Amino acid sequence: MRERDVLEEFRPLFRPRSVAVVGATNNPFKLGYHALAAVRSAGFEGEVYPVHPREEEVQGLKAYPSVEALPEGVELYIFAVPGPAAVEEAGKAARRGARAGVIFAGGFREMGAEGERLQRELARRADEAGMKVVGPNCIGVLNPSGKLNATFAFPLSWFPPGDVAVVSQSGGMGNVILNHMLDERVGLSKFVSLGNRANLDFHHVLEYLAEDPETAVICLFVEGLDHGREFLEKASLAASRKPVLVYSRGYSGKASRAALSHTGASASSEEIYRGAFRQAGVLAVDSAEELVCAAKALSLGAVPRGEGLFLCTHTAGPAIALAEICERGGLRFPDLRAELASAMEEFLPPGAAPGNPLDAFAFAWTDPSIYLRAVDLALSQEDVHAAVAVFASGAASGIRFPFREYARLGKEHGKPVYLCVLTPFLTPGELDQAREEGIPTYNTPEKAGKALVRAAEYHRLSRDRASR
Amino acid sequence: MRERDVLEEFRPLFRPRSVAVVGATNNPFKLGYHALAAVRSAGFEGEVYPVHPREEEVQGLKAYPSVEALPEGVELYIFAVPGPAAVEEAGKAARRGARAGVIFAGGFREMGAEGERLQRELARRADEAGMKVVGPNCIGVLNPSGKLNATFAFPLSWFPPGDVAVVSQSGGMGNVILNHMLDERVGLSKFVSLGNRANLDFHHVLEYLAEDPETAVICLFVEGLDHGREFLEKASLAASRKPVLVYSRGYSGKASRAALSHTGASASSEEIYRGAFRQAGVLAVDSAEELVCAAKALSLGAVPRGEGLFLCTHTAGPAIALAEICERGGLRFPDLRAELASAMEEFLPPGAAPGNPLDAFAFAWTDPSIYLRAVDLALSQEDVHAAVAVFASGAASGIRFPFREYARLGKEHGKPVYLCVLTPFLTPGELDQAREEGIPTYNTPEKAGKALVRAAEYHRLSRDRASR
Repeated sequence: MRERDVLEEFRPLFRPRSVAVVGATNNPFKLGYHALAAVRSAGFEGEVYPVHPREEEVQGLKAYPSVEALPEGVELYIFAVPGPAAVEEAGKAARRGARAGVIFAGGFREMGAEGERLQRELARRADEAGMKVVGPNCIGVLNPSGKLNATFAFPLSWFPPGDVAVVSQSGGMGNVILNHMLDERVGLSKFVSLGNRANLDFHHVLEYLAEDPETAVICLFVEGLDHGREFLEKASLAASRKPVLVYSRGYSGKASRAALSHTGASASSEEIYRGAFRQAGVLAVDSAEELVCAAKALSLGAVPRGEGLFLCTHTAGPAIALAEICERGGLRFPDLRAELASAMEEFLPPGAAPGNPLDAFAFAWTDPSIYLRAVDLALSQEDVHAAVAVFASGAASGIRFPFREYARLGKEHGKPVYLCVLTPFLTPGELDQAREEGIPTYNTPEKAGKALVRAAEYHRLSRDRASR
Repeated sequence: MRERDVLEEFRPLFRPRSVAVVGATNNPFKLGYHALAAVRSAGFEGEVYPVHPREEEVQGLKAYPSVEALPEGVELYIFAVPGPAAVEEAGKAARRGARAGVIFAGGFREMGAEGERLQRELARRADEAGMKVVGPNCIGVLNPSGKLNATFAFPLSWFPPGDVAVVSQSGGMGNVILNHMLDERVGLSKFVSLGNRANLDFHHVLEYLAEDPETAVICLFVEGLDHGREFLEKASLAASRKPVLVYSRGYSGKASRAALSHTGASASSEEIYRGAFRQAGVLAVDSAEELVCAAKALSLGAVPRGEGLFLCTHTAGPAIALAEICERGGLRFPDLRAELASAMEEFLPPGAAPGNPLDAFAFAWTDPSIYLRAVDLALSQEDVHAAVAVFASGAASGIRFPFREYARLGKEHGKPVYLCVLTPFLTPGELDQAREEGIPTYNTPEKAGKALVRAAEYHRLSRDRASR
């Protein structure tokens, strides 16, 4: 049945053989300077063509006076010029065989009738030529593994590659999500800031990401949907293959999409959206941080195959906070079978009672092997589907959580093990170590708890789908 | 009426003239090594006395073989020895005139009847001598301005001084709160990890902090209260002078205090606690992050004197998220008066409509003076009580938010101005700049929104108190 090759359709956008930057300049106070600097700093390996009406050389590269002067068949065009000019240039690029374009400029649908007309004209030209246009009114596209930075922010050239994709209607919220990913050390497969969605909308990108072998988890920020039915269809398809998470805002009052949204989205009610997301098998989350924390767990495949959780700690306060979030989110802490409890008793310090959650007091901080032994026992119980350890960073004390051994335990039991290491973002060495071992690790109990709840919810969604 | 000098009563704990570390050692695998290293790395300026039965010199200091061998009148004793020994040594210290002590060890009330007896014995000895004991089963005390680090974590010696106090029942959650403060660049006045509260409980420390001139905001983490009436009385007193915030967890199921808490607190219902906090004029928050973000705003005195907020952005997505949190939290976005709207129209870019929230599109990113002019107009309207600007970090683009001028506007109007700069924690230069200007600044819309909601709630609490 499938005759279209959606990967090849999108290849010119995410992995083009050549890129033209229209508006590229030597003037660092212009957007076109930053757009070209972004492409080059990422180490893009294909041909790069700056287009500027007067400059002969831009940032050390031969410049071309116009789109018409470029060779035929440049695949991706980045338009760093104002709105009306971008529409003109996009038309020319389409005629010269452009396959994809990125338009940063505003001045379209978000600005009333005249902008709306301009945007329709842009879409018409792009559609006729089969050219995919990201934007207008967006911050562009990233593909770290393809060394493509089609934004105007060159620091994004160093964004770590990974398998989490981000599609954001809002450039600003896209930025917020990328920032959380940096903080959480989550690598990126593809980033698309959709903006006004002239001819490229959520459902198109979802169809691609469902197939993209580099993407294991898809994160969306949605302000409003123009094509609800198509979204549901493609989100549902994508969610049948990999986790799809959505953060959506702007339902009510002065914060509503109608009142404040420059991507021209239509307003709708929260209930309708929530229902649609559920129906599509998409996980809805409540903040950008939660989106990224859940994506981190899912990208590591840390999906508990049930609601039973074992918690082990040396410090009760954070464990209480974590456990409460988990219980409110539908997870349970099964009692340990009698023989496991007595086996646990053998190595627990005096005064510590076997249990779930388990508090092994400060003894487990100075001797973290207690965690390993307790988790090994607990995971052997059938209705315990995952473990989480809460540990205060041993920074400078010489005490270190046994990341590798803990990760191995999880693999041996075939059950995910999570870690909450209490450490500031400013001294994150331990977060790096844990990530290297493939353990979903968070530096606060709130983040760890929410990630666990969402991962378990993902399992339920998948199970429900399978039983339909 | 007041004859007690509570500041002087607590001085030996927070600003002692001399400190003894019982259990100090040259062995870096012992707690006593870290306890002494912590005292010294903080640059403590009084006398420091290591106590070790056999060593003659510990970490370059003359060591004393026993508490009895110390000079009379050492003010603060830090006990880095196991539980039963700590009780013995605390008794001796009390007899030699100790005024305050910190006991890290566990093995007390959290471990059943025998531990309970030991703790009562400790409290009896301390009470008799008028010695204040922090702990047992805690991570200690910090007073950055007094160069006191009475914990066993020497990195805390470099914690920035400030005017926010933290009192945590749980050492682990204390750690989480301190980590958030580091991330948010919030300075610390006093930190107390209460642990098992042998003879020092929330109400005692609250009475002190209410008077402490170095403390402007008090943050609490409560797992459970033994002395509800005393807590209410002292929290209420403190809250009449400065903001008191509380994060409390552990109400239900396996996460309950009864099931998992090594500080031996009794369980109670969430409703009872919430009601009590409200009655005392204490602000209850829902996470450690929210605790710190709200404290940051309150410590800068950024209290809106009403519910009216003006929001200005160049990027709609994050602004929508922020606005929605504010509206759900009871803030409003008043319409601007006609003459203000038309004055605003004069400098707004084409297509941008005067309004609240105001989206001035990317024009306001490249020319942030638009923020200043818009906020200046909006704050002149009576029912607008605060402003918040949402701005994408200009990192490396050369674009920079006008922190100083924005802060000055707030001062001129006598109304707080907040900032949400979308930047990762990993590249926080802009957060530092904004903090220097005294603007409450957050790097996500969720944090900014919650801080604004809590600051406005603080105003309502204060107003309600005044009208009683």
